[in-house]
Amino acid sequence: MASSIKQIIFLGDGIGDRPVPALGGKTPLEHQATPALDLVASGGESGLMYPIRPGLPAGSDTAHMAILGYDPATTYTGRGPFEARGVGLEVRPGDLAFRCNFATMTDGLITDRRAGRIKSGTDELAAALNEAFAGGIDGVQVIVKESVEHRAAMVLRGEGLSMHITDADPHEAGIPPGEVTPTPGHEGDPEALRTSRIVNEFVERNQAILAAAPVNQERVAQGLGPANVLLPRGVGTGPHLAPFAEQWGLRGALIVEVDLVRGLGLYLGMDVVTVEGATGGSDTDEIALAKAAVAALADHDFILCNIKAPDLGGHDSLPDAKCAAIAKVDRAVGYLLDTLDWNHHVMMIGGDHCTPITSGDHTGDGVPVAFYGHGVRPDYVTSYGERPCATGSLGRILGADVMYLLGNYAGTVHKFGA
Amino acid sequence: MASSIKQIIFLGDGIGDRPVPALGGKTPLEHQATPALDLVASGGESGLMYPIRPGLPAGSDTAHMAILGYDPATTYTGRGPFEARGVGLEVRPGDLAFRCNFATMTDGLITDRRAGRIKSGTDELAAALNEAFAGGIDGVQVIVKESVEHRAAMVLRGEGLSMHITDADPHEAGIPPGEVTPTPGHEGDPEALRTSRIVNEFVERNQAILAAAPVNQERVAQGLGPANVLLPRGVGTGPHLAPFAEQWGLRGALIVEVDLVRGLGLYLGMDVVTVEGATGGSDTDEIALAKAAVAALADHDFILCNIKAPDLGGHDSLPDAKCAAIAKVDRAVGYLLDTLDWNHHVMMIGGDHCTPITSGDHTGDGVPVAFYGHGVRPDYVTSYGERPCATGSLGRILGADVMYLLGNYAGTVHKFGA
Repeated sequence: MASSIKQIIFLGDGIGDRPVPALGGKTPLEHQATPALDLVASGGESGLMYPIRPGLPAGSDTAHMAILGYDPATTYTGRGPFEARGVGLEVRPGDLAFRCNFATMTDGLITDRRAGRIKSGTDELAAALNEAFAGGIDGVQVIVKESVEHRAAMVLRGEGLSMHITDADPHEAGIPPGEVTPTPGHEGDPEALRTSRIVNEFVERNQAILAAAPVNQERVAQGLGPANVLLPRGVGTGPHLAPFAEQWGLRGALIVEVDLVRGLGLYLGMDVVTVEGATGGSDTDEIALAKAAVAALADHDFILCNIKAPDLGGHDSLPDAKCAAIAKVDRAVGYLLDTLDWNHHVMMIGGDHCTPITSGDHTGDGVPVAFYGHGVRPDYVTSYGERPCATGSLGRILGADVMYLLGNYAGTVHKFGA
Repeated sequence: MASSIKQIIFLGDGIGDRPVPALGGKTPLEHQATPALDLVASGGESGLMYPIRPGLPAGSDTAHMAILGYDPATTYTGRGPFEARGVGLEVRPGDLAFRCNFATMTDGLITDRRAGRIKSGTDELAAALNEAFAGGIDGVQVIVKESVEHRAAMVLRGEGLSMHITDADPHEAGIPPGEVTPTPGHEGDPEALRTSRIVNEFVERNQAILAAAPVNQERVAQGLGPANVLLPRGVGTGPHLAPFAEQWGLRGALIVEVDLVRGLGLYLGMDVVTVEGATGGSDTDEIALAKAAVAALADHDFILCNIKAPDLGGHDSLPDAKCAAIAKVDRAVGYLLDTLDWNHHVMMIGGDHCTPITSGDHTGDGVPVAFYGHGVRPDYVTSYGERPCATGSLGRILGADVMYLLGNYAGTVHKFGA
């Protein structure tokens, strides 16, 4: 739907938090000076957003799905397909896709699930696996592709595959790879049994292939742990998701640092922008991200930008790191405030979920959000944070409400009725 | 899911209210001093909870179902099965279960629906009925069990029974027992017609059996109304409810005073604790209940405790009685605050529904709730009550949200997504 108003969702990944004793009982958002975010809140309309439902901790993938208007409860199959698309693999109907880790095995036990966060050579390891498995397993094609560090993705392509199987990754060190079996409720399912056998054979056979690769022989010679097993997990089939342009009538771009969310964007047919200096770490160039957002707005109706750093501070339970990451988000939003004409833009600032310092993982707490710009009806809130936003006019919203609210301000949501 | 954090729901039955003229326009919660409840609210996160949906008055059974995470809209069949389980009757698939009243009939009319709240002897009356109906009715087995005062439950067991029938209890005095018929939409249903005939025959025949019982002959000799008819109502089939431990991965206990809710707990496979001194009346020993709650926490992950007294004050439209009952709830919560280590517990205080003084029955108003303890993100609320809690960070929640929010704070709700 044509509109001259451009729409922006600007997220700090995992930005919401809980009171932190080391910050005097304040949350990182309450402790860190955030002049730009406060300007958005005081000039805008605030609330708390539950990405899926109150109290349910959301993943980055399911949270972004919900915020972009796709119901994860009915469409999410697993992280695998997004990971695979994020690294450039095609996922066709019927395919199975997995997230994988290159790991180190010693005497049959996983001794390092990340193979020392191996920095290079995984492209050669993936190529060796693709060559060795070129004949497939039991008629099923095997395609591996490396990602950053120890990360990789895999696609299995063939008839009669089942996603109802467990992970080969045991999720902890000191034990062998998990034996893949059908999940509860699918124990007798012939397709799940056969798929389990195929993945188990893949894990069994990939060890010798990887051990023989020059990359690993060099690592051993240097005293480093070899990446001598590839462990699949997070299986899913390609989900049925309407293209973003079809769902919302908007030309959309994603400026994000996480492969998982990039994969979602590719699935939705959105333009996924790569930004030089966007590292996905605490050293990311937030102004480069903000400039890329502004540039993308030139030829898109809608952009979603996500800075990953706040989530890292939460997962690592480091208050200072999280506050510093929030300062980066604030500077990026400040750049947008200074640069864009707010008579022709509307923005929601917020996060995809909370990653509190004190829990070190995602929680189901409400995420503070604020809408700003064209059409927005400001409320009494004067600063951005968990407690102030809870007093805002929006009250409690769900992730599923975001595209409607934003499109409402932009005038792109069609009237229902006469 | 294993967690070191124990979860508590502490309810004052029907505790929510509306402004009461006799209290100067305050609600009982606003009028009565509640230091412990206020401490919970000021250190916690508050809101208003609608047990099922805004404006829909909930029963004690459906409200507790919703709060425990079971959707009454799709699973509730009637109060009968919970009453039957609450008094110790088994309810098998296909059985019909009823709540019953022993009542007094004179010249074919019900003159007292509660037989003078008969205090003793109903065990003998139930035994007399079970003996007289040992041969069943039309091949259907009849099982009666007495409860407190005039209350009883009944199970019908046999092939082809239908729950789509009306009550025999006319719900008012001065008229005959209701003729049981199929409910609207089931008029021609042969199973509903046959079941109606069976219940009508039971009501017709039980009168002579009860009149002949020594218990009733003594009552007549003493000038008391005899319990000379048993009136079934609230029919339901055994609902299909997943065990609580399976649904939430928690070992749960109920410390409640109402048979109806105890029956629900038994249905869910929860441990139902009996507390000496817990009378279910205005004289209940609230500290005994609180002590039982603390004791149950030693070997359970989750407890729900409910003090019945506030609901009685509401039903009887007695402001002083309701305020006194609220003081009991406050003392019990105070005991928990003083006794438990709140780094390892999380609690929601609230009620199952509102029972306002001015209406004398359940209403669909929001119930004030406050979460307190591990993980909770406190808001600006400083006292517990209908109006203060409405300004809290939780805004409006549903009963269905409670187990997610509590489990989110305790860390027992699984992340959905990656």
